[in-house]
Parts: sequence; structure tokens; C-alpha cells
Amino acid sequence: MLDLQPLLCPRSIAVVGASTQPDKVGGVPVRLLAELGYAGPVYPVNPGAATVQGLRAYASVADIGAPVDLAIVAVPAPAAPDVMAQLGQAGTRAAVVFTSGFAEVSGGDALQHALASQARAHGVQLLGPNCLGAMNLRERMFATFSPIPLSGLPPVGDVGLVSQSGAFGAYAFALAREAGLGLSHWVTTGNEAGLQVADVIEWLADDPQTRVILAYMEGARDGLRLRRALAAARRAGKPVVIAKVGTTAAGASAAQSHTASLAGEDAVYQAVFDEYGVHRAHTLEAFFRLGYTLARGRRTAVWQAPSGMPADAVAPLAIVTVSGGVGIMMADSAESQGLPLPPMPDAAAQALRTAIPFASTANPIDVTGQVVAQPQVFVDALGSVARCGQYGAVAAFVAGAANAPRVWGPLQDAVTALHADPQAAPLLISGVMDDQKRAWLEARGCLVFREPAYTVEAVAALAKAAALEAAAGAPDDADGSPLAPVQVPAEASALSEAEAMALLADAGVPVVRHGVAGDADAAVRIAESIGFPVAVKLCSRHILHKSDVGGVVLNLQDAAAVRAAFARVQQAAAEARDAQGGPVPFEGVIVARMARGWGEIMVGVRRDPVFGLVALAGIGGTAVEIFRQMAFGLAPLSRPRARTMLEQSRAAALCTGHRGHPALDLDAVADVLVHVSRAAAAIGDRLDTLEINPFIVGPDGLVAADAVITLR
Amino acid sequence: MLDLQPLLCPRSIAVVGASTQPDKVGGVPVRLLAELGYAGPVYPVNPGAATVQGLRAYASVADIGAPVDLAIVAVPAPAAPDVMAQLGQAGTRAAVVFTSGFAEVSGGDALQHALASQARAHGVQLLGPNCLGAMNLRERMFATFSPIPLSGLPPVGDVGLVSQSGAFGAYAFALAREAGLGLSHWVTTGNEAGLQVADVIEWLADDPQTRVILAYMEGARDGLRLRRALAAARRAGKPVVIAKVGTTAAGASAAQSHTASLAGEDAVYQAVFDEYGVHRAHTLEAFFRLGYTLARGRRTAVWQAPSGMPADAVAPLAIVTVSGGVGIMMADSAESQGLPLPPMPDAAAQALRTAIPFASTANPIDVTGQVVAQPQVFVDALGSVARCGQYGAVAAFVAGAANAPRVWGPLQDAVTALHADPQAAPLLISGVMDDQKRAWLEARGCLVFREPAYTVEAVAALAKAAALEAAAGAPDDADGSPLAPVQVPAEASALSEAEAMALLADAGVPVVRHGVAGDADAAVRIAESIGFPVAVKLCSRHILHKSDVGGVVLNLQDAAAVRAAFARVQQAAAEARDAQGGPVPFEGVIVARMARGWGEIMVGVRRDPVFGLVALAGIGGTAVEIFRQMAFGLAPLSRPRARTMLEQSRAAALCTGHRGHPALDLDAVADVLVHVSRAAAAIGDRLDTLEINPFIVGPDGLVAADAVITLR
Repeated sequence: MLDLQPLLCPRSIAVVGASTQPDKVGGVPVRLLAELGYAGPVYPVNPGAATVQGLRAYASVADIGAPVDLAIVAVPAPAAPDVMAQLGQAGTRAAVVFTSGFAEVSGGDALQHALASQARAHGVQLLGPNCLGAMNLRERMFATFSPIPLSGLPPVGDVGLVSQSGAFGAYAFALAREAGLGLSHWVTTGNEAGLQVADVIEWLADDPQTRVILAYMEGARDGLRLRRALAAARRAGKPVVIAKVGTTAAGASAAQSHTASLAGEDAVYQAVFDEYGVHRAHTLEAFFRLGYTLARGRRTAVWQAPSGMPADAVAPLAIVTVSGGVGIMMADSAESQGLPLPPMPDAAAQALRTAIPFASTANPIDVTGQVVAQPQVFVDALGSVARCGQYGAVAAFVAGAANAPRVWGPLQDAVTALHADPQAAPLLISGVMDDQKRAWLEARGCLVFREPAYTVEAVAALAKAAALEAAAGAPDDADGSPLAPVQVPAEASALSEAEAMALLADAGVPVVRHGVAGDADAAVRIAESIGFPVAVKLCSRHILHKSDVGGVVLNLQDAAAVRAAFARVQQAAAEARDAQGGPVPFEGVIVARMARGWGEIMVGVRRDPVFGLVALAGIGGTAVEIFRQMAFGLAPLSRPRARTMLEQSRAAALCTGHRGHPALDLDAVADVLVHVSRAAAAIGDRLDTLEINPFIVGPDGLVAADAVITLR
Repeated sequence: MLDLQPLLCPRSIAVVGASTQPDKVGGVPVRLLAELGYAGPVYPVNPGAATVQGLRAYASVADIGAPVDLAIVAVPAPAAPDVMAQLGQAGTRAAVVFTSGFAEVSGGDALQHALASQARAHGVQLLGPNCLGAMNLRERMFATFSPIPLSGLPPVGDVGLVSQSGAFGAYAFALAREAGLGLSHWVTTGNEAGLQVADVIEWLADDPQTRVILAYMEGARDGLRLRRALAAARRAGKPVVIAKVGTTAAGASAAQSHTASLAGEDAVYQAVFDEYGVHRAHTLEAFFRLGYTLARGRRTAVWQAPSGMPADAVAPLAIVTVSGGVGIMMADSAESQGLPLPPMPDAAAQALRTAIPFASTANPIDVTGQVVAQPQVFVDALGSVARCGQYGAVAAFVAGAANAPRVWGPLQDAVTALHADPQAAPLLISGVMDDQKRAWLEARGCLVFREPAYTVEAVAALAKAAALEAAAGAPDDADGSPLAPVQVPAEASALSEAEAMALLADAGVPVVRHGVAGDADAAVRIAESIGFPVAVKLCSRHILHKSDVGGVVLNLQDAAAVRAAFARVQQAAAEARDAQGGPVPFEGVIVARMARGWGEIMVGVRRDPVFGLVALAGIGGTAVEIFRQMAFGLAPLSRPRARTMLEQSRAAALCTGHRGHPALDLDAVADVLVHVSRAAAAIGDRLDTLEINPFIVGPDGLVAADAVITLR
């Protein structure tokens, strides 16, 4: 973890390029630090001025003569590398570079490289260039040229916000302020020549002032750093909300021209986010709603599984509504979020029905428009479901009833009582009400939304965060036993099928019975020993698409057929050419048992440019090309992730009693995927791709019927 | 179309069960009509009072002695049928029944039936029972017991709102009022013993005061009525927004207990909505946002395809942003909405780059945070893209800049100029701004949202509405040539495969070459005439799952194999039993050519309990069971709908050059689906299900290799 203390909690700040005009880029931070009450010394550096905005100015960094934790740099781009060197020589520990005109403009790469090199050479931590800076709300540290803090600050709180985009960051600041969302830190990373979003996430994961992390990113320059950061947040039990944009081709192309980001494949990002329990937002609205939910919601209680339920079960939800129709909408949302809706306890149901005969006591619990005539019945229903111990959360829809004085009083009493009861399930309320009532409810632990479906989504998000929190500190699932590195031939660009099968078998992957034969007699002997029917396939490091050259003959029933097939494959090898157009040495054939099953899946590992080795799995055969429903996971896989991939890709459906075939043990199937991914990871840097297509799904589970491993 | 004039534009109103207390169910409407200025006479009926809230009261309906268009009924449930009879006898034309305690409570069915019967017998149009009534905002007609109009009315406008749920309707009224969304009519249908949501939609489609229709429904009691209503709205070019709840199992079960709705299969509802261009909302937020967008947005201009583009192409979108990051989010949204983003014209790009060198002139067009320093450059960019003729709409993100006075002035000038220019593309703006600025922009034709992605979604919705409007009055796609009814055997519960194949062939569906043989010699003759390989299959009206009884032998290569197969199938028939356990008469075998192809799809028609005949299509074989990605459409299909089904189910991927196979003409493939659906529709009421599984996809297009038709 990088120590961002000098950057985010500096004891002293220099402003290089400080302007006497408080609305210039070099003038705004001087003004902000002075007006908003930063406690440490501020040293403006401006060779042309004796004072800057009332502070003594210095001609150069060297003239300051006092230790500087953080330098804010607002000098023209060509001067920035030299300034960085001077800062380093003066012992400055961190620098925020506002200046633009680096890698985001054509021809600016060299200058950015020079800047970063100077920072690295002198051990100065670099934020930027082309960034809007950073703030520490608690310490009133405003290292930004955005004037936005002058028009008001959000409360000091425990949400840390980091954004690659400055304009996004500024807008997010304004929205947080408007919503009263309390911030701890605010950081924009711009061109990321030094610090990346990932570094800030990792530091915030360790920061005691921060409990929720919101991040905006266009792409990760270093996928492993991002993984490390997300793992740190998971270990700390802190939820991370990410708006990763550039999810589509149009968006990715826009991202590339914005901060020269590599947007990468969205499915892989999603797999990474799933792996670390990241909450993903696709709109600004969802980004802030998740921030609000996670910062203000009562997580632990949401999660407390009622007695008798397994600890990892999702605690059921009670929906209490004054509109049956809206209740149905909420039930739709609950089902799509995977939240169960068991009926209310009998006694409470009886009480409700006695008071309002036409109320519905199923769940959603509909007290109907009677809420206005009989508000006590409504709040009694709320109280009884919140206290019955059967629900993890209560989502209530009150329409406009909270604004009715005869409802608001009883509702206040009920909320006060539930707030004081640590055993009560948390309450989330939707409807229209004035801001004052909303604030009153929020102060007593209720989350309040206008949209009823959002109460349900909030419960799901809180349950996910609570599960993450409960698992905080646990070792990573993917750890498993240590990987023993596997050696592969130094010069080869691929393994032969026989080599690949052997490597997989060593890693615990079930492979079809087979042998390698150099002549027809040997082929027949192998076939007779493993049993007919068999396949005969060309075995070569040089021919990966052996079907394309006629090197595969399937379904051979007897010795004569094997001999004929051997001859055909040998002939095919003689006619084949390698990638350079040269002849292919004949290394023999594989004779393999024809595996029998009722379906095929494919499993692969490939090298993602951002995240390294990524495993993928899906239904094989024609369907894979038609539906393209592959699931991804980081290699090596954990068993839970492998199981999720089987579900997501629908491959699990082939394994669980498909068309009357026996159901397989899904954990055992998942373990095969884990072994494949570990085999790839054990090859390490040399691995380019590994693909098993098909894995035959049959009574013995998965059996690899073919394997290709390419190297780099 | 039902004439709802007496209900929604009554010239006189009776209130039966009128209460002297203005806050009782029977008192509220008397108060509303008086206080809010209904112009016609109001006759309270209350045998126990001389006056009701200052109006002369009548002892009975018969006593009124003047024609009554509409009666509001608020009497106890058991009295309601008699009241309905009295109303009928007095010549009342329509009645709103508030009373609950009918079909929504157990044992209430009989009373509801009695009420509906009286209404029908006397020709009284019935709204309710268990409903919250209706309003006509323009005529200040408030036939509701909700007191909500007393606290303020939304503006009179051109949005008609109809809701099955009363509480939903009341909440929607409050939200419309808050958002300033102008309403024409507001109708709640409750238990729908008489009028249904569909009837109201159909009437609103014809109502000159209504331009946009918003509907909430839990389920349609009569699918054909709903189709007729949606077709009427489509013909009138009026967009319909529907919140159809009960989309999941949990929601559907809640809907059933709410108003005893049959929620039906959501995929079929979706197909119906797709067919008629309905805008679907899954949240309250989206429901109102779509209403706002369609009521206030400039549709036609959005759609105007720029010169050189085909008329049905989606006009491209220009995104102009002050934050590159938000621009990327908007680009992601545009791609997922299918809106193209071509770059801005060269001259405008040059001008922008000259003014702001680091601006991005691709699309999204990013003027960066420079907007505050150089607002004129930003508004010039807006103006040039809106006027260049290349874009159908401009979606701008201004963050908080509109609140900056130095930006707001130039933005006002630009918006004023664009508003006056009928050639300019419409402008949609997102960002935070105070309500006054928002209203100013809205008054000049801008749609304003907080969430940037919503501007893009609004453009997509307006484009869809504009396309619907452009096609208004055109005949339904599905019309085609008239269907010639097909006779099926009177007593049969199914057709034999040979009968089904013949029926399909007559309808223009390509079927595999085949013949029917009663003995082995005939079977061999047929095989030799159609060519090997062939299949031999039991042909019987009584055995639909012929594989299950051993009645199918595939891939026969010669005459001897056909003879052996015939004997096996004949034996299987002898051993088979029909559904009643009786012996199955041997009707012969089908000898069919084994069709060759590279894939299989399945196409069926089944009877949906709500909508009648529904066609479905999808990839066949194992994949259909694993992915369950079937697409639905109303039978008979139109060609465009059939093409959409091929795309939605991914079956089109099999037909368009899959794995190097030749690409088929997708229109011709779609026509095969159309013929299948027309064959089913021609059977009409007798059809239970029709299934062709598989259709072989091969060089000659689709060929039906098997067919099952069951009757009822």
C-alpha cells in the first residue's frame, strides 16, 4: 500500500505557480486553503511577486527553507518536469499537478514521461497531471483549482470519493453536498502518471475515517493493482461502489480519447467486480444512491439471518404498503434481487385483518388506503413485522400519507420505538414527503426514497455489504494450496495435445483415456487397451487446428478402422505446413477413447491485457457461438467463483439433471474448473491461452476430450 | 370503442349514498364537485336528509326527475345491485361504484356478478366496483372519494392516466401535480366488473384532449380488448406508457391477491407491448419520466432523418458535455439504446478546437470545464451541432454550470435562438440547476433531467414515439391476405404427423419430402423415390410422443433398413396405448427424407389464456432447454415481428453465415414463421398447440422435419 498521508493529510503545502489572482488556476488553492481554514503553513511560490493573496511568496521551491509535505503545481506543462526535480531536491513528499497538455493531447506523451520520471527519481508521489486535485474534508485541506468548495461544503463524513475524471469529481462533490452525503476524502487522478484510482482505493480501505468508497474510473492501467486494492477493501469489510464507464464500444472509444484509457472488456471488469463484491453503478443516480444507502443504512441488522436460517442465507424482506399495486412492483423487484418474501406471522396477520378486513396479510402486506383513517393499524403492522425476528429488513411504501398529520404522529412514535430497539429489523420508507420529515426519519436510521423499488434495491445492497463485512479479515477464497510452477519447453509456441493433456491430468483435471502412437500397430494396441470406439488425432506442437488439415478421425469401431485412420492422419501430417510454411515433423497420433455424455462445455484461460489470466466457461458446441453466454473469472479460480460461472453461463443446467440425466455434484464440477485455472496459472508468464473444448458432460462428471495450450 | 362520454364528460351527476359529512366516502365527491367548480347539476341521493352539504337531497334515484349522465355509487355492497337496477330504470347512462367487498374478498364473487348483471341488463356503463373513481380535469369533474384534489390540482394537459389500482392512481395524481405534468383524464378501474383499463385506453386514443396515455395494470382480463385498444392508440399515433406489474412469480402472486388479476406470462405481455410500440415502465420513476418525456418532448424533429439516411433509420444523436467522464457514460447509454453517434462536422470541430485546444471533437463532444471560462464556445458548439442537419437530437450535460451567471446568459441566448429555429434539432439538458432555470428551459422546448443517461433514454423514447406517429393511420402489419379457415376433423384431439405436414405445406411452409406407407413395400418405394437416407416414423393421431414408444427410426441408408424399421415401428404401434389406455389403430408410417442442415430451430403456436394464439420461436435442440431464450409474437405474425423474433431468440445467427455456412434471406425465413402462424390462426378456435421441432436450417432455408398439432 502506498502511503498517501503526505498527499491527503499534509502538514504543510507549497503552491508552485501561485497566482495573485484568486480565480486563476494557481490562485484558487491559495484562496481555498486560507478561506476554508487549512491549519498548516501554505507557501506560495511565485518569482514575480513578494506576496500572494496576503501570504509571503517565495521565488523558488528551494527558497522556502522549511519541510513541505505537499506541493500543488500549476505551472505551464513544459516547466513541470523541472519543477518536479526541484521539489524532489527540496525533499517535498507529494505533488498534485493540475497542468494539462500531457498524454491527453497528441504529442504530449514525452512530456508526461519526463514528469513521471522526475517524480520517481526523486521519490515524489505524483497525483496527475491534468487532474483537479484532492481534498481532505476533515482537515480542511483543499488542493484543487475547482472553486466549488467556495459555494459550500458537504458534511464531514465517512465516504471516500476518487475519480479519474476531474469534471465528474466536481459534479459528484456538488451532488454530495446537495444530498448531505458526508465525505472524508475527495481525490481526482487525471492522467495517472503516478497515482491511480486503485492506489487511492487501497489507501482508503486502510483509512479509519473512511467506511464507504466511491470510485469513478474509465479503465485500469494496472489490473493487478486494482485487484490488490479491491482485495484490501474486502478484507477491511468496506463496500466499494464503482462507476466504470466505457462499457460499450461507443463508450470505450470515447474513453480512449478522454484520458487515453484502455477501457478493456467489460465482461472481465464485471468478473473482477463480482469477485471482490464491488457494487457497480451504471448511472450517476445509482452511484449516489448506492453511496447514500451504504453510508447511512444499517447493514448488520439487515443481514442478521433469523434463527433457523443458515448464516449465509439472505434475510427475508417484509414489504408493507398502502397501495397493493405498488406492493406488486416492489415484489417484482424483490424477486429479481433474490430477496425472499415469506408471509407475516399469524398473530400479526390476525390483528391486521381484524382491524382492516380487506387488508392483505400475505407479503407484500397491504394495509390499503385505510392508512389515513386507521394510521395506528399501519404503524402496528410495521412494528410487528420489524420485531417478529423473521425479517432482515422492512420496506414500507407510504405514498403521500407521511404528509398527513394524523399519520405522521403515529409514524414518528413507531420509528422512535423501532430506532431504540436493537433487535428490530431496519426500516426503509418510500413515498413523497417534505424534506424536513425525510431528514427526521433519516436521523432515526430510516433510509428514505421516492421510488419504491429503490427501497428493495437498497436492502439487497445492504445485505451484500453486510456479507462482505461479516467476511472481513477472512483469507481470500482463491488462495487454495500454493501453486507449484510448471515448466514448459523453452522454445515452443504451443504444446502438443498429448503434452497439454498430461499437464492437465497432473493438475487434477479428468482427461479422456488416451495414448500416443508412432505407428499403426501401436495405435491399434492403444485402442484395444482403452476400448472402442476411439478417435485418432494428429499430435503436434505445430498444428493446433488439426481438424482443418484432416488430422482428426472420430468414432472408430475396430482395429481396421484405426489402421486406416492412422494412415490418413499420417498423410495429412505430411501435407500440412506449419505457421512459417515449413513441413511439420510427424510426432505421432493420439488415440483417445470417444467420451460419452449428454452435453459439452468449454473452459478456457486467456490473458487479459489489463487483469492477466482470466478463466472463461460456457456451453460448448453451436450454442456457444449463437448465445455467446460465457462467464468470466480471475485465474486461479476459487470454488465459489467457479460455481457462479457455471450458473451464469447456464452450464450448470447441463449438470443438474438435464433431460433426465443424472445430476452431478456441482462442487466437483466447479473443482474441475478450479484445477484448469490453476494449471494455467502454474504455467505463469509463458501461458498465452489454454482451451479445453469440449469437456464432455457425462455420468463421470467432466472429461476433457481435447486441449490446446499456446505459449508466448 | 365504448363511448365513455357519459362517464368522463357527464352533463349531470347523481351521488347515491351521498353523505352530509364531507370527509366520508359518500361525502367527498359532493364536496369536490361543489368546491372545485363542476358546471353541471349534482343530485345527492340520501333518503335520510333533506339537504346534503347545501344541495337539495333526493330520497331515491327515481325522485330526481331529471336526466342523469353519471351516478356515483357509495352504498353498502349488498345494496349495490338494487341501486344499479334503479339507476338503469331511471335512464342513468354510467355509474362509478366506489364500494368494496366484491370479488376482491373471498365470497364476494356472487355479489359482483349480480352488480355487473344489473348494469348490463339496464345498459349502464359500470366503472368499478372497489375503485377510486374518475376525473376530467378540463371539465372539473371529480367522481372520486379521494380527497387529494382538495390539496391542489395538476395543470390541465394532454396526458390521460388510467390505473387498475386506486392507491397507485392517487399517488400518480400527486406525483403529476408535483411535477407539473398536465393531465386530461384520470380513471381508476378497480375490480373491472364493467370497464377495463383497455376500454379506457381505447377511448383516450380517440379523445382529442389526450395526446399521451399512461396506464397501470396488473393483468388484462380480456387480451383481445387490450390489443384492440393498443392498436387504436397506434393508429392514432399516440404513445402509450404501461406499468404492467406482476412480472415475476412473487409479483404475480401478489397481484392475484390484490385485484384477483390473472398476471399471465410476462414474456407474452412484452411481445404484445412490442407489437404495438408500447413504452414499458418497471418503476414509478420511469413511468413518470416517460410521461414527462413524451408529453413535453419534441417528437417529430427527433425523428427527422437527416438527408441521405433511409426514412426508418434512427436519427443520430450528438452528445455535448462539460465532463468527458459523463460523456462516456452517455455514450454507453446511447449504444445500448441503439442511437448512433457520428462525429461533428469538420468546420464546427475546427472552430471548437481553435477555441479550446484540448476539447474533444469526437462525439461525445467534450468542451471540458472550460465552459465556465469560455461559455460562448460551449453554446456555439451546441448551436452548430443542433443546426448542422446531421443530428436528430442534442443531449447536453452541463453539470452545475447553468447556475453560473456567466454561463446562464449565453445558454439562454442559444436556447432562445434554437427554439425559434424549426430546423434545429431538439435539445435535452442534464445537470443540476434551480427550479426556475429548469422551468425556463422547459418552456422553450428543452427537456431537463438531473441524470445524464436519462437524456439519452428520452431521445430513444421520442424517436420511438415519432416513428409510431409517422406510421399513424397505416394498416396493421399483421393484416396480410385474409385467412381462409381450415377444417380439422371434428372428433380428433390431434392431427397425425402426415395431416399436420399436409396442412402446413398447404399454408406455404416448406416441409421435408415424405410419404405415408401402410406396408413395408410401400415404405421402400417411397424411400427410393425421395432418396436415402430416410426416417421411418409412426403416423398416428393418438401417439404424439412417438419417440417415447419406439416409433421413430432415423438415418436409414437402404431398402433393407427401411423394411426392418417398418417392422419395428409396426410392432411399437401394436404395443402402444392411447391416452385412455386403449389400443392404437395402426394408420401407417411416415417415410421422410433426412433433412440436412447446420442447425435446428423450433417454432410453435400456443393458446395464451389472456391473448389467444401466440407464436414462439427459438434455437432448437439442447440449447432451447438450457438457455430458454424463446421469442414471442401474436399470431398471425407480421413479417417485421417474425424478423424481430428471429433476432431476439438468436435464431437469426444460425441463418446469417453461421460457421461459414451460406447466409439465408432473413425475410424469407421470417415468412416461413408467418406462414406457420397463419396456418395456426386458420385452424382458429379448435387449435390448442402447433409445434414444429425441428425446423432444419440448411442451404434451402427452413424445412419442417416434424410437426405436432393438437386440437381442443
